[in-house]
Amino acid sequence: AVIASAFADSILRRSALMGMITLTTDFGIRDGYVAMMKGVIARLSPMTHVIDISHDIDPFDRLAAAFLLRDAHRYFADGSVHVAVVDPGVGSNRAIVALEYNRHFFLSPDNGILPTALDISLCKNLVRVENSNYFLHPVSATFHGRDIFAPVAAHMCQGVDLSRLGPAIVQEEMVRLSYRGPVLNTDGSLVGTIVRSDHFGNLMTDIDTAALQQLAAGKFENICVLAGSHWIEKWGAHYQQVAEGEPFAYVGSNGCLEIGVNGGSARRQLGISSGAQVILTYRA
Amino acid sequence: AVIASAFADSILRRSALMGMITLTTDFGIRDGYVAMMKGVIARLSPMTHVIDISHDIDPFDRLAAAFLLRDAHRYFADGSVHVAVVDPGVGSNRAIVALEYNRHFFLSPDNGILPTALDISLCKNLVRVENSNYFLHPVSATFHGRDIFAPVAAHMCQGVDLSRLGPAIVQEEMVRLSYRGPVLNTDGSLVGTIVRSDHFGNLMTDIDTAALQQLAAGKFENICVLAGSHWIEKWGAHYQQVAEGEPFAYVGSNGCLEIGVNGGSARRQLGISSGAQVILTYRA
Amino acid sequence: AVIASAFADSILRRSALMGMITLTTDFGIRDGYVAMMKGVIARLSPMTHVIDISHDIDPFDRLAAAFLLRDAHRYFADGSVHVAVVDPGVGSNRAIVALEYNRHFFLSPDNGILPTALDISLCKNLVRVENSNYFLHPVSATFHGRDIFAPVAAHMCQGVDLSRLGPAIVQEEMVRLSYRGPVLNTDGSLVGTIVRSDHFGNLMTDIDTAALQQLAAGKFENICVLAGSHWIEKWGAHYQQVAEGEPFAYVGSNGCLEIGVNGGSARRQLGISSGAQVILTYRA
Repeated sequence: AVIASAFADSILRRSALMGMITLTTDFGIRDGYVAMMKGVIARLSPMTHVIDISHDIDPFDRLAAAFLLRDAHRYFADGSVHVAVVDPGVGSNRAIVALEYNRHFFLSPDNGILPTALDISLCKNLVRVENSNYFLHPVSATFHGRDIFAPVAAHMCQGVDLSRLGPAIVQEEMVRLSYRGPVLNTDGSLVGTIVRSDHFGNLMTDIDTAALQQLAAGKFENICVLAGSHWIEKWGAHYQQVAEGEPFAYVGSNGCLEIGVNGGSARRQLGISSGAQVILTYRA
Repeated sequence: AVIASAFADSILRRSALMGMITLTTDFGIRDGYVAMMKGVIARLSPMTHVIDISHDIDPFDRLAAAFLLRDAHRYFADGSVHVAVVDPGVGSNRAIVALEYNRHFFLSPDNGILPTALDISLCKNLVRVENSNYFLHPVSATFHGRDIFAPVAAHMCQGVDLSRLGPAIVQEEMVRLSYRGPVLNTDGSLVGTIVRSDHFGNLMTDIDTAALQQLAAGKFENICVLAGSHWIEKWGAHYQQVAEGEPFAYVGSNGCLEIGVNGGSARRQLGISSGAQVILTYRA
Repeated sequence: AVIASAFADSILRRSALMGMITLTTDFGIRDGYVAMMKGVIARLSPMTHVIDISHDIDPFDRLAAAFLLRDAHRYFADGSVHVAVVDPGVGSNRAIVALEYNRHFFLSPDNGILPTALDISLCKNLVRVENSNYFLHPVSATFHGRDIFAPVAAHMCQGVDLSRLGPAIVQEEMVRLSYRGPVLNTDGSLVGTIVRSDHFGNLMTDIDTAALQQLAAGKFENICVLAGSHWIEKWGAHYQQVAEGEPFAYVGSNGCLEIGVNGGSARRQLGISSGAQVILTYRA
């Protein structure tokens, strides 16, 4: 019985190990595009678990895709394959890259998403995906999600090594977004960026708790936030702490500064969204 | 071969038994919140099947969440864990409850959803979820779905007993919605509530077939329905039986009175939605 | 170890073989309808994999459902059961049909979807689904998706033969849409139909590459497309090849002619959608 049980455990564990793929795209879910990707994956790797991170990235918003991927991938098991296809360049000669980071695998167009989402200097085994043995044929000009990303991810779950997907590259070769991280000015103010917003209208920045601590020595209530043309002076730990309709700053569930409105949409009320700057100053 | 086959069956059954979790939230599916919950569940309980009941509950509409959960949970296997997170009080000191009902398990904020969704007097093993050994750490102030509900549900699927989640409570301690069920007036009229509406605009009430039978001895066509300022006198078994644009009453697929418009939206046409009253009177 | 490994493989394969169901409906995903179908399937066939093709077919748009099903089913494994429920006639006496096509199984109301989606002359084992032993009871008047389609599909995955679902029929008995395929006029012009559009606003036609080849001997740039009142003369392989805002024709990822606008919506810009005609003429 002990042996049988150990054996059953090993089988269950092996099923689980046949992998996890996450999908982050701007394809929407009404047109069957995501379903076709899942069909391709299931044919090649039937026991792989596929989880949708989001298919409603604003069309072509690579910055939002990068930060969602950064936040979400941490909650998945080691060995997961994260596929991010926000791909205005599909069909052109843009490259596709795969790499390993922190025991996770990533697969995306070479268009700036991965260097923004991850600490690229810690990535390993970077390759340009070119080995068409792992593609679906014929490869269409407009739907690499189905013809390249899905089958390559499935093969990765089946144990195909990154080195077999194509030639090694170095991170300096990879395309970058024009985005750069928070900047501390000489006057002590901190300039950050709204990197995405959620369906409640909360605005999520790239300023993490460490930066906030540094700025205000833990006294967040002494920090003022300029977002668009609005000064925000109120801080809260959660929505119930502020009046309805009032914009406030808080540390979001990803550990970064967010701006929200209790019972409303900060995006609408402040008139800003992904890409806008925020400026934090210390009120002595 | 017989032994091998029996053994294979037991493994398959065991996989299947590693459970089912359903999710009912107002988180939407575009922001990765649901994906993070699924990632957390999959890490702790890789063979558990997760099914989305809905993530588009109107923000904070606990009444709609309760009735959707009441209707939907019946179609899942015994032993399923139903997680309902519509949670305006997240981060405040509201409690979280878990319980057993009719061989299903439920996990939700203590904010009125479960006593409305279920016959609370038949619930067993009620506990206040406080054992942080089953939480993800650190617990954020704004996303208990990921940090408490997902890992606790996963542990429940792994066989953790309710009694280990926290102290027993009695149902009288649980928070209730102000909602109360249908009321029969002394003049013989019956007053019910629109409890939710669907994406076609159909209005779903809390008046079940038994109440209708009692009111009209099976002759539904003798019942008039006052919904908002509209009298509805037409009954149908399905949409094809009434003219386009005409509001009509029918027994919905959950066994309760609904109001619909063939080819249109009753919600828009009658100008009422979740929470509104309907009055049924008998036409002699 | 070899035996154990072979045995483990057989179990994993058996799990995988317990099937795939795809769902194509106009039910939306916010109301729990799809979840109830999945609950019913999981109770009857716990190891079956269910993939959503789309639940956002425009209400009652059988033409769009048919062409999406035609395009998407090809990417799933042999033996998959494809369920398409766009069903304005639910509750009336419309029939339900099941059949086999190209090693896939299909289940749908007898309302024209399947004869449009598939080459019906190559379908086998057509039956009218009438055996209520495979239904959920009681069968509601308005939700056959849950009460008939889901349990019948689950039983099909469990190996129930089509012949046990109901009496054989011949394809001539099946209801057809008024739609007919592309027509070549005596003046050499080709008349096709917009069969669906996607969330980007791309317009997808029923004119395939073979028809295009025939018309222009491979010189697509000599074909002009009249769509609504707009003449489209520009062809591209992908979006990057045309100016922003310019409508252009291209071969879509399903091998058929599509009309798109780089950075915009062809549906909105041309003011046409599913069901509209397009006329192709050869520019000598």
